[in-house]
Amino acid sequence: MQSFTFHNPTKIIFGNGRSAELGSLAKTVGNRALLVYGRESIKKSGLYQKICHQLDEQGIRIVEHGGVKSNPSLDHARKGARKALSYRVKFIIAVGGGSVIDEAKAIAAGAGSKTDIWEFFTQKASITKALPLITVLTLPATGSEMNANMVITNDDTNEKLGMFDEHLYPLASILDPELTYTIPNRYTAYSAVDIISHLTESYFTNEGGWTPIQQRYVEGLVKSLIEAVERIMDNPEDNEARATMMWCATLGWNGLNTAGIGAYSMPCHTLEHPLSAMYDIAHGAGLSIITPAWLTLHLKDKKERIARFGKEVFDIKKENDLQTAEETIRVLKSWYVKIGAPVSMKEAGIYAPNIQELVSLAIKGAKLRKVPGLTERLVEKLYRSCI
Amino acid sequence: MQSFTFHNPTKIIFGNGRSAELGSLAKTVGNRALLVYGRESIKKSGLYQKICHQLDEQGIRIVEHGGVKSNPSLDHARKGARKALSYRVKFIIAVGGGSVIDEAKAIAAGAGSKTDIWEFFTQKASITKALPLITVLTLPATGSEMNANMVITNDDTNEKLGMFDEHLYPLASILDPELTYTIPNRYTAYSAVDIISHLTESYFTNEGGWTPIQQRYVEGLVKSLIEAVERIMDNPEDNEARATMMWCATLGWNGLNTAGIGAYSMPCHTLEHPLSAMYDIAHGAGLSIITPAWLTLHLKDKKERIARFGKEVFDIKKENDLQTAEETIRVLKSWYVKIGAPVSMKEAGIYAPNIQELVSLAIKGAKLRKVPGLTERLVEKLYRSCI
Repeated sequence: MQSFTFHNPTKIIFGNGRSAELGSLAKTVGNRALLVYGRESIKKSGLYQKICHQLDEQGIRIVEHGGVKSNPSLDHARKGARKALSYRVKFIIAVGGGSVIDEAKAIAAGAGSKTDIWEFFTQKASITKALPLITVLTLPATGSEMNANMVITNDDTNEKLGMFDEHLYPLASILDPELTYTIPNRYTAYSAVDIISHLTESYFTNEGGWTPIQQRYVEGLVKSLIEAVERIMDNPEDNEARATMMWCATLGWNGLNTAGIGAYSMPCHTLEHPLSAMYDIAHGAGLSIITPAWLTLHLKDKKERIARFGKEVFDIKKENDLQTAEETIRVLKSWYVKIGAPVSMKEAGIYAPNIQELVSLAIKGAKLRKVPGLTERLVEKLYRSCI
Repeated sequence: MQSFTFHNPTKIIFGNGRSAELGSLAKTVGNRALLVYGRESIKKSGLYQKICHQLDEQGIRIVEHGGVKSNPSLDHARKGARKALSYRVKFIIAVGGGSVIDEAKAIAAGAGSKTDIWEFFTQKASITKALPLITVLTLPATGSEMNANMVITNDDTNEKLGMFDEHLYPLASILDPELTYTIPNRYTAYSAVDIISHLTESYFTNEGGWTPIQQRYVEGLVKSLIEAVERIMDNPEDNEARATMMWCATLGWNGLNTAGIGAYSMPCHTLEHPLSAMYDIAHGAGLSIITPAWLTLHLKDKKERIARFGKEVFDIKKENDLQTAEETIRVLKSWYVKIGAPVSMKEAGIYAPNIQELVSLAIKGAKLRKVPGLTERLVEKLYRSCI
């Protein structure tokens, strides 16, 4: 195991009906908040009305910032930060999935540090302060509710960049499984792909030797997630399965699976970001295209690790590691197909991809994130294998 | 899964040589600290001298409070709290294992809340404030370095009581695997037993249905721990194994294995406490006596759960659950024997136990901790089966 520092101060409030605790929780933080949310779904479901009622009852004034889109845009986040400053809100409430929470983090940092948000991503400025953030999670996938990461897309340049800063941990996050019953199966599938990617990227890229704790942690969560997703596909209101998926998402990217494994890299996320930035597909849909392709490209040099994953998660046992690894990639890809996630660009509606532009953005992202091994030749080969 | 709140703000600083960061870390908290430690071992190893030097270099004045014993006593903790108050220390530094950290927590709470420590345990007073606590862990076992629990023994009454309060989370804990090379195999064994108990008590007592995340988390950690302990027994300076054991101990009792499984109880800990309180044996040594006996008593009504544990952890597969469960208890007990942990009172040097007194203390503890199922008849039967 390698050295690490783990410090995750986010408070998790987990359970059916616990979104009703938002008002009393918010009251402990301040009396004026920016309410960040996405499109109309929380209004249709009635969650928006319930939340406004709760906050109103506690005397908390709200400044609205709806309309966050699924790859949250820099411009929209900048608008949010300006609102937060001009209305002098004391904190941010984010109600939604990872995109909403990520944009809320960007706003919290931009308003808290009084700095243009993009400068944090391009490493021209540091976050010195962020407004406190409370989240109510409605789409478990990115783990943003219990981590200090955020991803924002600059629509002018098609750059989709991610970053980590310890000021970005939410103060508290409410995880109410009942709020996730209405997620369409398609989005449940994309979310599952994203969670698997968070858990396994470092699992596959880690060359740091014997880390049984982290390996088993990942294998256990992926197995639990797969079982849960299959139950959800049959019955979207399966509370146990929804709860399991929700907690898997949070545990999948809160720092525990990477603590102790040394430097890790996220090649699949880095290769996916150009795809969803340019073609505005769901991040999970991009990952289900990229991940099997990336594994296939590394079949030989990562055969032991891929075979172990297949053996532990899918109970695959072939004659040797290479065959087990091959079968593992096939089974994973089939599972993505089964749950309705695309495994080629065509299936995601991208018929004439601009490969050169994708390669150029991926290389740029890889440099910024210090992801090793992503040469132009390899990246181009990978994108071409995904058409 | 059941509702839960998880909020563990302790910062973990993990890695070889990282105890050298204590001085700079301490400086961010204050300039006068109570240094809590055990007997002479940290002086013999040179750790004490290194720590004093570091603190001195940062201009931090130390008030000494050594001599904590392995079942930390109320009287000694009270003395510590008086020192902390009279020297007006700003924070506490604990260097040692779970006993030292537990006593440091008691002192932090007593001095912070200006209340007699025992009143917290008997639930006559609440902790309103605790002094900040930094720990340097030298014996991984209790998980106290990343939780809000403490156990103290009242030598006047032979009561050994535990409690939880969120003020008791350490501010930061340094986990330096190199500091654990000198732990004698006997204590490594006792610690392993304690870690397994923390992980499995709620695993065995939880009747809350489908909690695959928590089950696999426990199974993965126990497997990793067993492998690590076997490597340590062969080579006490196996750094990977020491690091794995250390992180298993912390993850074994930091709230994650119990989050979401509903009400859990700790019957084995409750039954062990009278044993170590009355006969001053190591807590882990008491647990290796109690745990197999408790499992045997519940062989039939918990056969599915015990069988699953045996299958996942020891790869045991017999004709039916009952046989698999029986074999699981046998294998666990044999493993305790193999690593040198006692599995009867005699082996722990207790030749003429006062069963009535043990029963009476256990029943008292069970009432206070609200542990169900521990009737006098059953508890007596259990202790008699351990003679």
